[in-house]
Amino acid sequence: MTEPPESAAPGPRPDVCVIIPAAGSGVRLGEQSPKAFVELHGRTILERCVDQISGLDAAVVVVAPADLVGEARSLLPPQIRVVAGGAHRSESVRAGLAAAGDAQIILVHDAARPLTPASVFHRVIDAIRAGHRAVVPGLPVADTLKAVEPIGDDLALVTRTVDREPLRAIQTPQGFTREAFVAAHADDAGLATDDAGLAERVGIPVHVVSGHPMAMKITTPWDLSVLRRVLHSGEVGS
Amino acid sequence: MTEPPESAAPGPRPDVCVIIPAAGSGVRLGEQSPKAFVELHGRTILERCVDQISGLDAAVVVVAPADLVGEARSLLPPQIRVVAGGAHRSESVRAGLAAAGDAQIILVHDAARPLTPASVFHRVIDAIRAGHRAVVPGLPVADTLKAVEPIGDDLALVTRTVDREPLRAIQTPQGFTREAFVAAHADDAGLATDDAGLAERVGIPVHVVSGHPMAMKITTPWDLSVLRRVLHSGEVGS
Repeated sequence: MTEPPESAAPGPRPDVCVIIPAAGSGVRLGEQSPKAFVELHGRTILERCVDQISGLDAAVVVVAPADLVGEARSLLPPQIRVVAGGAHRSESVRAGLAAAGDAQIILVHDAARPLTPASVFHRVIDAIRAGHRAVVPGLPVADTLKAVEPIGDDLALVTRTVDREPLRAIQTPQGFTREAFVAAHADDAGLATDDAGLAERVGIPVHVVSGHPMAMKITTPWDLSVLRRVLHSGEVGS
Repeated sequence: MTEPPESAAPGPRPDVCVIIPAAGSGVRLGEQSPKAFVELHGRTILERCVDQISGLDAAVVVVAPADLVGEARSLLPPQIRVVAGGAHRSESVRAGLAAAGDAQIILVHDAARPLTPASVFHRVIDAIRAGHRAVVPGLPVADTLKAVEPIGDDLALVTRTVDREPLRAIQTPQGFTREAFVAAHADDAGLATDDAGLAERVGIPVHVVSGHPMAMKITTPWDLSVLRRVLHSGEVGS
């Protein structure tokens, strides 16, 4: 048995980087703080989000609003990088990429999905290692979906019922090879909220692996209330 | 002032009937009992469902599996009618209609949405009284939706990203004028789970009013666990 080379301790830099854009305002949530800094049963959404992947062999870059970089820094473990975001999400994603070193697998994860189990990250990473360039988690759609035309304040007319069978509700992390990620964002006009959608637009095949109900997104005060109650009544498994 | 006629006390029979098909097996839930009879923080899903509309001026008909009619009867207040369902949902809905008396407004409500606030029922009923023949509650879709083609055990390829803006995730109660309901179900082959879809198929306009996050459907063990925790940590308002 030979000694491992010096460079193997503490190990090579991980080739996976998780970028967490946390610069969104979260106005729909009706809270004072930007969404990632809202408290969720004693800890911020951002801390819970980062906690979930503490065991992952990946670098983590949090992109915070410029005026909350210090706040984010003080909340998070020292190995997490914190950088300032821009006015648009695309600028924030680019700032994250600039801090991602030479990682060859880039994951972008919504801070607003703070209970996403590590297993979902593993599925995305494994599919990229298997040769796919863009991979996102998704779940079947449980509700009947209908397309509507608004005809009043609280009234719309159904124009058709949508076949939900082939549809998946897409979650995060969305994962990419570095080259696919750069290509996808090359001509991003700044308004995209769906990185995989950008990849599709430039002809990169996007694959879907199984998501998880715990990866639900906090969008409304109801979502926040549900997750607060879930955490209040005991930690949930993955 | 004249005395009200005798028939006005205790009041005319309500012209609204809520049919609750509760004959589904709920296999996806992984519980021993049919879904409506599963316990949700000390009471069955069915009891909670009926409780939510106890203040509504409406007759309520519960359609139970034939072997659980007695069980349902024993759980529910005496003014709730309980009838036996059939092998298919359409038979159960017809059994419910047969017990609905001459109600002119028919609502069909999923037992699997036990926390649906009464306000949602009111919105549906009000829209029907305003002249619409078929009215369902719905919510905007929060997740990005993509259409996929399966290409493996846990892998699918995205074929397109769906514009979610015009889409609504449809909840229940689904409401109908009696004539629209009868017309919609006239040629139901027995497999429909979406009464409004049947109405659309025979050319009846279907309208959508605002649903409510609390009207979420219990489909998976995760959903059940979430609602158990929500109830465990205190009743929620409407």
